[in-house]
Amino acid sequence: MDIPSIKHVRDHLIAKPGKPFSLAERPTRDDDIFANKDDAKTSLKKDAAVINELKDMLYAHKKQSILVMLQGMDTAGKSGTIRGVFADTTPLGMEVKAFKAPSANELARDYLWRVHNAVPKKGHIGIFDRSHYEDVLVVKVRGWASAEEIDQRYDQINAFEKHLTQNGIIIVKCMLNVGHEEQGERLAERLVEPHKLWKFNPGDLEDRKDWTKFMAAYETAIERCSTEHAPWYVIPSDSRTRRNAMIARLVRGALEDMNLEWPNPGYKPDDFDIG
Amino acid sequence: MDIPSIKHVRDHLIAKPGKPFSLAERPTRDDDIFANKDDAKTSLKKDAAVINELKDMLYAHKKQSILVMLQGMDTAGKSGTIRGVFADTTPLGMEVKAFKAPSANELARDYLWRVHNAVPKKGHIGIFDRSHYEDVLVVKVRGWASAEEIDQRYDQINAFEKHLTQNGIIIVKCMLNVGHEEQGERLAERLVEPHKLWKFNPGDLEDRKDWTKFMAAYETAIERCSTEHAPWYVIPSDSRTRRNAMIARLVRGALEDMNLEWPNPGYKPDDFDIG
Repeated sequence: MDIPSIKHVRDHLIAKPGKPFSLAERPTRDDDIFANKDDAKTSLKKDAAVINELKDMLYAHKKQSILVMLQGMDTAGKSGTIRGVFADTTPLGMEVKAFKAPSANELARDYLWRVHNAVPKKGHIGIFDRSHYEDVLVVKVRGWASAEEIDQRYDQINAFEKHLTQNGIIIVKCMLNVGHEEQGERLAERLVEPHKLWKFNPGDLEDRKDWTKFMAAYETAIERCSTEHAPWYVIPSDSRTRRNAMIARLVRGALEDMNLEWPNPGYKPDDFDIG
Repeated sequence: MDIPSIKHVRDHLIAKPGKPFSLAERPTRDDDIFANKDDAKTSLKKDAAVINELKDMLYAHKKQSILVMLQGMDTAGKSGTIRGVFADTTPLGMEVKAFKAPSANELARDYLWRVHNAVPKKGHIGIFDRSHYEDVLVVKVRGWASAEEIDQRYDQINAFEKHLTQNGIIIVKCMLNVGHEEQGERLAERLVEPHKLWKFNPGDLEDRKDWTKFMAAYETAIERCSTEHAPWYVIPSDSRTRRNAMIARLVRGALEDMNLEWPNPGYKPDDFDIG
């Protein structure tokens, strides 16, 4: 069995803060990190169990929280990641927030307002299915904000994320890097599998036509917003099992870095008369 | 193996709408429904898996939702139920809401305001750890509202729950019926188990002193608010495994009653050029 260390996974997937970043140089399929698919399955299973255990300690403390942000093109596997990585994690202390097109009420505020409103409570693990990065991705590609506005947003996002990390939120940002060809196959699959048909959205084909523009927007966002406090990890996502296994390593790593123990309020059995 | 049917569990645990209800007649331990603990474990495991499958169809449809309300004295096992019944349920499409003492902002509104705000989205399963019933339980026992106000609330709650059910929310109300002696043992256990110590709250002993008053408040609430649209189920909860197994049967039953299938938007593979 060959399970890569958390450090190894991090080192290979991180977009180094302050360095030039090229998305084209990042594989959408990486058989080196998990050479063997069965090893990926085993690793995922183990990590999912550990994540559930450590999550309970996080929940008991209610001092810090973890925010996992998932970004990627349609079919990249944002939902599949949530199902896979948190397969053993009961819903207690978990918050999943899917960001859709903003409502009129949300558009009446700045783009970070609804995001700030959705950050996980202390003690919880929050998962963002999409995030404020849409405001420098689809918004940029479609031209819904001026180039100047978009340009300002990278620094605004960095400041916002720094604020969150300084206030007890550990951020794990994962870009699910799926290939153009693989996406085509997955979209076609949705049209033939009865249990996937509901996921097919004709609008996704519009984004697919703008693939190159989206990749450019991702590249800039990752280069400008991979920071020491909240680095981006670029996850090869053509293999679903390996993708989940890699992200599970990152989430487990974030939890282990916290050196959690059970809280001890110092009560002794003799302190109380239970009656 | 002897797994009771969903109908059998319902018939034995329901507080019949419109009938007098006596809590004293309800066992806190019931070895008849699941005579064998191993059968309860097996049943729970199977139901947890089915709940996770059906939950995905509910999520795909986004038309209805399920709201599981858990009420009970401290240590009755509200958190344990969430962990056990939803052991296989990934956090996608799940919402857990724990109701604590209301904030100043919440107290500035009527008592159902924060509850309405927390109802699950269409397609989701929501779990309430405590609920608006606290407003006719602890509020009544402590005298934080007048007898007249409390008396009005039962009908208000029935009207509110009827509104929710008429608008696509299936409500499953479970009172976790734990015995006074068993609670004493569980509180003592919290003081000696390092991973449970954080759960010990000296304030819980105050509620324990008012046990009889709480039981009377539960009895009235259940009698007046067990309705055709949202009946109360009283779950013998001295055995954790059986408690979880019974509630899993009820949740599975609620999902099965919806006769869910995968949504079919009617797209055909040839309708689209994926490119």
